[in-house]
Amino acid sequence: MTAPIPAADPSSNGARALIHTLLDSGVEVCFANPGTSEMHFVAALDEVPAMRGVLALFEGVATGAADGYARMAGRPAATLLHLGSGLGNGLANLHNARRARTPLVNIVGDHATHHKRFDAPLDSDLVSIARGVSSWIEAPQTPDALAPAAAAAVAAAVGPPGQVATLVLPADVSWGAAPGPAPAVAPTVPAAPDPAVIDAAAAALRSGERTVVLVGGRVVADPTLLATVAAAAAAAGAQLLSETFPARMARGAGRVAADRLSYLAEFAEMQLDGAAHLVLVDTRSPVSFFAYPDKASDLVPAGCRVHELVAADGDAAAAVAALGDALGVSAADASLAPTDIPSRPDGPLTGESLAVALAACMAEGTILVDEGNTSGLFVAGRTVGAAPHDLLCLTGGAIGIGLPLAAGAAVACPDRPVVCLESDGSAMYTVQALWTQAREGLDVTTVVCNNRSYAVLNMELGRVGAGAGGPRARAMFDLAEPPLDFVALATGCGVPASRVDTAEGLCAALDRAAAEPGPHLIEAMVPPLV
Amino acid sequence: MTAPIPAADPSSNGARALIHTLLDSGVEVCFANPGTSEMHFVAALDEVPAMRGVLALFEGVATGAADGYARMAGRPAATLLHLGSGLGNGLANLHNARRARTPLVNIVGDHATHHKRFDAPLDSDLVSIARGVSSWIEAPQTPDALAPAAAAAVAAAVGPPGQVATLVLPADVSWGAAPGPAPAVAPTVPAAPDPAVIDAAAAALRSGERTVVLVGGRVVADPTLLATVAAAAAAAGAQLLSETFPARMARGAGRVAADRLSYLAEFAEMQLDGAAHLVLVDTRSPVSFFAYPDKASDLVPAGCRVHELVAADGDAAAAVAALGDALGVSAADASLAPTDIPSRPDGPLTGESLAVALAACMAEGTILVDEGNTSGLFVAGRTVGAAPHDLLCLTGGAIGIGLPLAAGAAVACPDRPVVCLESDGSAMYTVQALWTQAREGLDVTTVVCNNRSYAVLNMELGRVGAGAGGPRARAMFDLAEPPLDFVALATGCGVPASRVDTAEGLCAALDRAAAEPGPHLIEAMVPPLV
Repeated sequence: MTAPIPAADPSSNGARALIHTLLDSGVEVCFANPGTSEMHFVAALDEVPAMRGVLALFEGVATGAADGYARMAGRPAATLLHLGSGLGNGLANLHNARRARTPLVNIVGDHATHHKRFDAPLDSDLVSIARGVSSWIEAPQTPDALAPAAAAAVAAAVGPPGQVATLVLPADVSWGAAPGPAPAVAPTVPAAPDPAVIDAAAAALRSGERTVVLVGGRVVADPTLLATVAAAAAAAGAQLLSETFPARMARGAGRVAADRLSYLAEFAEMQLDGAAHLVLVDTRSPVSFFAYPDKASDLVPAGCRVHELVAADGDAAAAVAALGDALGVSAADASLAPTDIPSRPDGPLTGESLAVALAACMAEGTILVDEGNTSGLFVAGRTVGAAPHDLLCLTGGAIGIGLPLAAGAAVACPDRPVVCLESDGSAMYTVQALWTQAREGLDVTTVVCNNRSYAVLNMELGRVGAGAGGPRARAMFDLAEPPLDFVALATGCGVPASRVDTAEGLCAALDRAAAEPGPHLIEAMVPPLV
Repeated sequence: MTAPIPAADPSSNGARALIHTLLDSGVEVCFANPGTSEMHFVAALDEVPAMRGVLALFEGVATGAADGYARMAGRPAATLLHLGSGLGNGLANLHNARRARTPLVNIVGDHATHHKRFDAPLDSDLVSIARGVSSWIEAPQTPDALAPAAAAAVAAAVGPPGQVATLVLPADVSWGAAPGPAPAVAPTVPAAPDPAVIDAAAAALRSGERTVVLVGGRVVADPTLLATVAAAAAAAGAQLLSETFPARMARGAGRVAADRLSYLAEFAEMQLDGAAHLVLVDTRSPVSFFAYPDKASDLVPAGCRVHELVAADGDAAAAVAALGDALGVSAADASLAPTDIPSRPDGPLTGESLAVALAACMAEGTILVDEGNTSGLFVAGRTVGAAPHDLLCLTGGAIGIGLPLAAGAAVACPDRPVVCLESDGSAMYTVQALWTQAREGLDVTTVVCNNRSYAVLNMELGRVGAGAGGPRARAMFDLAEPPLDFVALATGCGVPASRVDTAEGLCAALDRAAAEPGPHLIEAMVPPLV
């Protein structure tokens, strides 16, 4: 055991070196829910004002916002969490970020190195907890080691692939004397495409056999890359599908309209039925979201050959360009969605009229966050020809990301409107995000579809072979008693809110929200789909 | 890889065997936030109605409620969480339960065993995550193995010491055919007291040197055991102190009034200063909650000898009785707190008048949950002579336990009033617990001290040597903009609420809450202490 590290002059302590290093490496925002062990980091925010600290009232808000920020900014944000328990609270949205391949520098404060052996009340095995969601973990034990570890964390986060890099920050490493920031680590050069792989994919497309091109990741986020893949598929007569839950997808008029692979395995199997080749473009081979009795987990049809055009650490742009060259097409050859903006609907609010209202009212450049679950079923179809927008999905299945993701996206893109399609059950996991939206004055319009149930579980109960459910089972999916009042919840967090139960009411509320600065919430009373 | 397990007749599946086993082992309540992989467990709630399922809208509510239930019922509840992400959301309060030595059967659903290798979107390394908070983890891989594992989980949870036992429940293990419940595992017999240890502690007490008796755990929860220890300490002229944050402590008129060891290490050092002997009675040797530059972590004075009367797995009642015998005293010899109920206060609400109001209005048998943090500073002192009550504290320092803990305590003790002293910052981590309180009609009165700041961090910033903080640092502790409106938040969750800013207003609101069934929330506007 070494002697405790005394507090250093703040102008040269570890925390300040850390923040300078993050800034030099392109990390300019920190979504934080700090505690005592992170106080020197917090104090350094005054010494290094270029780092923007955004306060969250719950750690899942901080981690989800960091994910949303990076998806839109194209570079990582940092988090600042308080020991193993704070990490636990942030874990679900770190899981989603991991599945989105989001670059994220996850800073977790810890007890001082000399304090660890006393197993103080807040101590826990945080590295074990972090391992479940982090591809990279480092815990520098001296102030000297902190800045280089921070630069390495950013490089690890950026990848490719983007990943969650967890930097454990002991309190004394933060407060001890440090020599200064470390230089940014040069980004990894992604692996160049393997000509043999490109040739094999091109041969599959030209084979005349039924071929499906499943596209995701970085490629669906980029309209030009997506158009190139679509042109190649079309030239070969192959079917283009997008992965089920893309982290970010360019959509709307003037973009490629790619159907998404269904969440429901039975429908996904129909979409892939009879395929002799499956070409994966920056996405994983499709599997069922859950297992069901007597049903297959692997959605690839028997006998279908799978071709991975580009791996997660590969150069997706180069691989797509090479595929286009091999097929003799470019992005300009793609068939794009024509503008198709529906009239504003009226009448009762349903899942379908809600989708029409969103499509009708969507402003160009909108960032559409989708955690609408069953209530959002019709939105993808109805927004194909809407104003061009970016869609952000729930990638990892851990509900409770929508409100934080929207907050982070709005921090990244202050000049773009953010519309967050939420569901009542999911919204409640991280409802504290509304407060951060209000505090930061973020232009987020949250539409909470309130069907007063965990509707997806009513559906899954039967799908998983557990029968129709008796009254006690159904009660576990029922959110009607007492009814959640999202207008009151939003008001409690400082966000103006209204409730609508008609399609015209929803359109009017969307217009009001668009006309006023700052966040708004619309509670949309919709009947359950199932 | 084995073939997928087909769904079995529900009358003989794993889930049903699991629930029967839990019931046979004394576990009668399950605090749940289920998902698709837990559907067969949920369906079995109709087949085995003796198991009470309590729905939470967030997993931290379920785990904190299971902790509160067990602290008051004296036997474990189960949780039901959804994969690694649900476990993550429940982790902070599992950490607190671990520190409270609460018996807790933590059931975490997982993907079917044959589905794991596909690394489906919701999959994560949940065992690694569980390791950070669980003393026992088992993941049965066949339906046959489930019921015996459940019986073992309950036995592990009960201990002594009480602990978090995590039972991983793959979906196919739940839905597959199972032979039926397993018999309860006989509880561990706690280690009998070692006469040499009792003699050494008695000798220390009789030594005439300054001796401090630090008492906690099971002993402060039991008025008779506490009185025996107090009588022994008094007979020897030793000082009696309670651990800082007991899981459950018997307090009020007619009970022993034991000062608590201070949270602030500098005060704790003064309390222990000059002690030649420290006798630990079912508690750990005291350490500073956090490390501070140039300050000691270990609070035991130099040269002080530490005597551990009973270990966590020992027989605390027998050890205390043996100590009493050695000193020639019994519980009847203890000096007990006289009744001292203050007059109802009036005037502005402050931390001090709030404490007087709580003491004045406290009903006999109240369960007082304390997560008041800085705002609750005066409550312990003011309630020494209040009506007899049980105090439940935040044991592990992970804020966000109060509202769930109160809900669980109310489920365990439907005939006793529960008063939950909360603070604004802490309340926001698990505010969803209010909905469960309303849904279950629980008699919980939550008093949220709203000082519009993370006041404890304003204090810690200076204590940890990070200076006074500039405006950007101070903004990270400031909850004033926008102001949180807890009346609106409670209304949104179906809990009737009011706001008070005078002491007489608080008394009137406490009276109203006591007179009406079901939960209430009182937003108490108090100035920050620091």
